[in-house]
Amino acid sequence: MADEKKKQRTTVSIYGQPYTVVGNEPPSHVKEVAQHVDQKMREIKKRNPYLDTTRLAVLTAVNVVDEYKKLEKEHKALLEKQSNQHSALGEDSDA
Amino acid sequence: MADEKKKQRTTVSIYGQPYTVVGNEPPSHVKEVAQHVDQKMREIKKRNPYLDTTRLAVLTAVNVVDEYKKLEKEHKALLEKQSNQHSALGEDSDA
Repeated sequence: MADEKKKQRTTVSIYGQPYTVVGNEPPSHVKEVAQHVDQKMREIKKRNPYLDTTRLAVLTAVNVVDEYKKLEKEHKALLEKQSNQHSALGEDSDA
Repeated sequence: MADEKKKQRTTVSIYGQPYTVVGNEPPSHVKEVAQHVDQKMREIKKRNPYLDTTRLAVLTAVNVVDEYKKLEKEHKALLEKQSNQHSALGEDSDA
């Protein structure tokens, strides 16, 4: 749609393979994300040298989702804490 | 070490393959994480039917890291906002 023209193609290297990512994110962000995945894969491979690349990539995704869910929990707790503080201070909700 | 006895083995199925995850997390958490990865893989496969499983798994990891980094940014901004509010209220840092 209207977004189409903003789409950028960024080619990155992950675990020795090229990947072209299409999206609205700046190349610097895509590269940072790719580097994170590459690093995680190498870390997990070091601990599990017998893993083939598919299983390695799946376990990398598992690790990252695990971290995501933990951060999500922290984030929700913080949002809740903040909303309680606002109520205690008698703030309006239209801030 | 001392942690060793707390380690649990949980076997999950991701994209039709069994994975045994060893860690301190309860099986319910591991299963939730695995289900999230499985679902993401199937979503991405639907959009890119030509992808082989390794590339699909790597792109799944890329997607999840992308989401993680976005949430991390939000979380840091919220922490900062909160710390500024505390300063404004003259709170001690020993809360």
